Amino acid sequence: MIGKLNHVAIVAPDLAAATALYRDTLGAAVSEPVDLPEHGVTTVFVELPNTKIELLHPLGEGGPIAKFLEKNPAGGIHHVCYETDDIKAAAEKLKADGMRVLGDGEPKIGAHGKPVLFLHPKDFVGTLVELEQV
Amino acid sequence: MIGKLNHVAIVAPDLAAATALYRDTLGAAVSEPVDLPEHGVTTVFVELPNTKIELLHPLGEGGPIAKFLEKNPAGGIHHVCYETDDIKAAAEKLKADGMRVLGDGEPKIGAHGKPVLFLHPKDFVGTLVELEQV
Repeated sequence: MIGKLNHVAIVAPDLAAATALYRDTLGAAVSEPVDLPEHGVTTVFVELPNTKIELLHPLGEGGPIAKFLEKNPAGGIHHVCYETDDIKAAAEKLKADGMRVLGDGEPKIGAHGKPVLFLHPKDFVGTLVELEQV
Repeated sequence: MIGKLNHVAIVAPDLAAATALYRDTLGAAVSEPVDLPEHGVTTVFVELPNTKIELLHPLGEGGPIAKFLEKNPAGGIHHVCYETDDIKAAAEKLKADGMRVLGDGEPKIGAHGKPVLFLHPKDFVGTLVELEQV
């Protein structure tokens, strides 16, 4: 079902500082920040040779990323995203196995324009897991 | 300085259950468990096409992984590991930039027989970062 690790998402309390840290201290290639108002986040991608780190910061008031920062003021890893080639089949298999797909259980269009779903961390070793159809 | 994401480490309260979850529900290739008594962990690798997930469980009494499970009984993401080609140069650059290398500041031989160092989560967006020389 799962293929590549598409990205690891890290919530940053200061997106510019986190971007500079990855670019200047760790020497990685970073993107410009992109605002995604419909998802309530600003994102910066750190491009590694085999995958990406997605730096996230809240855009606007409230939302899950702001709540994460309230609980974790220094920031932290928010989720991992695995690729899948058929998200509907993945959702059916996961639900048949008793896994909780967040929201109404159906895949949605995610922050990068592709169908995604999120799985309950309590079902996945304390880890928020995103699946993205590629 | 950093290259590929070598692995994401996830601490599992029940290693057999986490292995079965990744193998049977997520359909990924998983290794046999390997005990690393000198590091106080048992590990299982989930082999993805572009990187690895390292499932960790405490081996023996005490140690940092057991403490992590006390704080996070459901488990969770413990660290990310980035590859580097010169760990001594990386350590010098990081310290010159004011970053805290855990322990005595010098690279050590890690769980997989290669030189590693760990960076303080407070300096890295709330994320425990391992660098491994490959």
